Amino acid sequence: MSCIGIVGGGQLARMLALSGTPLGLGFIFLDPASDACAASLGAHVQGAYDDRRQFRRLAKHADVVTYEFENVPEAAMECLSREVPVYPNAAALATARDRLREKQLFTELAIPTAPHAEVNSLDDLERAAARTGFPAILKTRTLGYDGKGQKTLHGPGDLGPAWSELGRVPLILEGMVRFDREVSCIAVRARNGETAFYPLAENLHREGMLRVSWSRPGDAMTLQMQGYARRVLERLDYVGVLTIEFFQAGDVLMANEMAPRVHNSGHWTIEGAQTSQFENHLRAILGLPLGATEPVGHAAMVNCIGQTPDPAAVLGIPGAHLHRYGKAFRAGRKVGHVTVRADNRTDLEARLNRVL
Amino acid sequence: MSCIGIVGGGQLARMLALSGTPLGLGFIFLDPASDACAASLGAHVQGAYDDRRQFRRLAKHADVVTYEFENVPEAAMECLSREVPVYPNAAALATARDRLREKQLFTELAIPTAPHAEVNSLDDLERAAARTGFPAILKTRTLGYDGKGQKTLHGPGDLGPAWSELGRVPLILEGMVRFDREVSCIAVRARNGETAFYPLAENLHREGMLRVSWSRPGDAMTLQMQGYARRVLERLDYVGVLTIEFFQAGDVLMANEMAPRVHNSGHWTIEGAQTSQFENHLRAILGLPLGATEPVGHAAMVNCIGQTPDPAAVLGIPGAHLHRYGKAFRAGRKVGHVTVRADNRTDLEARLNRVL
Repeated sequence: MSCIGIVGGGQLARMLALSGTPLGLGFIFLDPASDACAASLGAHVQGAYDDRRQFRRLAKHADVVTYEFENVPEAAMECLSREVPVYPNAAALATARDRLREKQLFTELAIPTAPHAEVNSLDDLERAAARTGFPAILKTRTLGYDGKGQKTLHGPGDLGPAWSELGRVPLILEGMVRFDREVSCIAVRARNGETAFYPLAENLHREGMLRVSWSRPGDAMTLQMQGYARRVLERLDYVGVLTIEFFQAGDVLMANEMAPRVHNSGHWTIEGAQTSQFENHLRAILGLPLGATEPVGHAAMVNCIGQTPDPAAVLGIPGAHLHRYGKAFRAGRKVGHVTVRADNRTDLEARLNRVL
Repeated sequence: MSCIGIVGGGQLARMLALSGTPLGLGFIFLDPASDACAASLGAHVQGAYDDRRQFRRLAKHADVVTYEFENVPEAAMECLSREVPVYPNAAALATARDRLREKQLFTELAIPTAPHAEVNSLDDLERAAARTGFPAILKTRTLGYDGKGQKTLHGPGDLGPAWSELGRVPLILEGMVRFDREVSCIAVRARNGETAFYPLAENLHREGMLRVSWSRPGDAMTLQMQGYARRVLERLDYVGVLTIEFFQAGDVLMANEMAPRVHNSGHWTIEGAQTSQFENHLRAILGLPLGATEPVGHAAMVNCIGQTPDPAAVLGIPGAHLHRYGKAFRAGRKVGHVTVRADNRTDLEARLNRVL
């Protein structure tokens, strides 16, 4: 039985383990939290993400290592890679953890992206703003997620205060893009170079957090989206699931950011695709054939933020599936999701409205 | 978070836990084996099935108790029921664990079944054989499974030796039925009396063990089958998943046996139905609304007996899903299954042939 090491023991690790257990896989999670919600599904190495000793423990017990977030320190990644195969590879991780490198890669691959500039000083910031115009968003290059580590600038008067607030770390200024909708591509590439793409996901964010994702089989933007994702997969010699989020304006997609992992906007694949993103990530990193990514009906996912709804109410809605992460309820925390599936879009929307 | 106690920690318990973990449920398993394959998905009470102390431990930690096999001793069931809700109820268990009571119930409910008679002596056996004719099958009333505990009788000369071999326990003689095919009904009834039925499953046995099950949505025998299952569910005030196996001869279904639990011939529901038999059993015993039992495409399941196939080979077949139970390989042991799903029956058969 192969053992998969996962850096992180949150809900993504938990869903990876739930999808991999039927394949006969074992799991070991590195997570500093004593109540890591994946821990009950495998072994738990409780240690900080910069503790080399704990990374060596993980490497020792795992046949292959992956991660559920992109903020794995580079030193830790190097230490792991010397002892065990790690997928996605170091180049993918280094790119995805840094908003500037991400955007540089998109540009290099002729994938449209928002105007942007590196910011390491107040002078840089002023020059960058001249280039992007206002409004613009000042972001930390690393460690931001769910809208954290960023500041919207509406005019020159915001430059100084924003710099004071965020200026202790490398930054990027991004011009704010007018868009019609946000979509994402969940793509997967196997060790042998085989690729597969899930149907386009359309995403609704509120207050910086993903609220709803719809599977959109047959969407008109599918080919453009997959073409861009394929360039990234191939350039990085990528192995595993890769997510790229795009803004769509008219019929143009602009890459916003990428995540070198399974992604919240792909949770609907558990019920709404032939093979889930979780199982396909595991198949990819183990060198197994990829599973089909075709849709199973129409699906949408609603995040449960802060708390999960009454199971009796949710499960009474036709086609609804409840996923609780086993995390303590807390305002602003993703603690579960509900997937709704239906045979057609009309039924899907009616059921989704009942969930919402 | 509710905690589900399960008597037995084998693959059925394992798949119940895999389906219930996303609902936020916890699990505790009672199983004498130190390597019970469900144990990694919850707490494990290691104890014999007649050890009242261990049953009390299970009752203490669980909010509701169920079981993965029907050979739970009646005393243990009584002991549990005094302290915690147990589903399916004692009447269902007592009926399903005894081939004679099963057949008496079928007869009482006007459900056709094979000619049969109780056998407690060699005299009984001779009288019974006169009634059923030959060939007939002498079976232990309890504890038989997968073709164990039974003996086929081809003529009067077989009576004495069969009695010597099996006659230490209560027996039943059943006339051998000529049938065209074997089918089963996976039915579920909620605490509030709501019922649901999965598409008819067509089953292929070899050497007493189930080898292949096909989901047969829209099968002509569906209504007859569901009508019989409904009678049993209602008579027993049943809660949970109930399986009834039938022989079909012409357009007549004859009930062969029932299992008060999720069943091997329903494993295809994980991928091949809107809600799996495992999730619906949990929903039922928890008093939650049942999930839809409609098919998702066409599906078939192949048991892996003795060993599981090379994952790379299986997962390379379109629509194939591998389920390994985490059990040591041993001749004659069910150690996993493969489900294949397709949009139509032709593709399903082609893919299934590759699996076989």
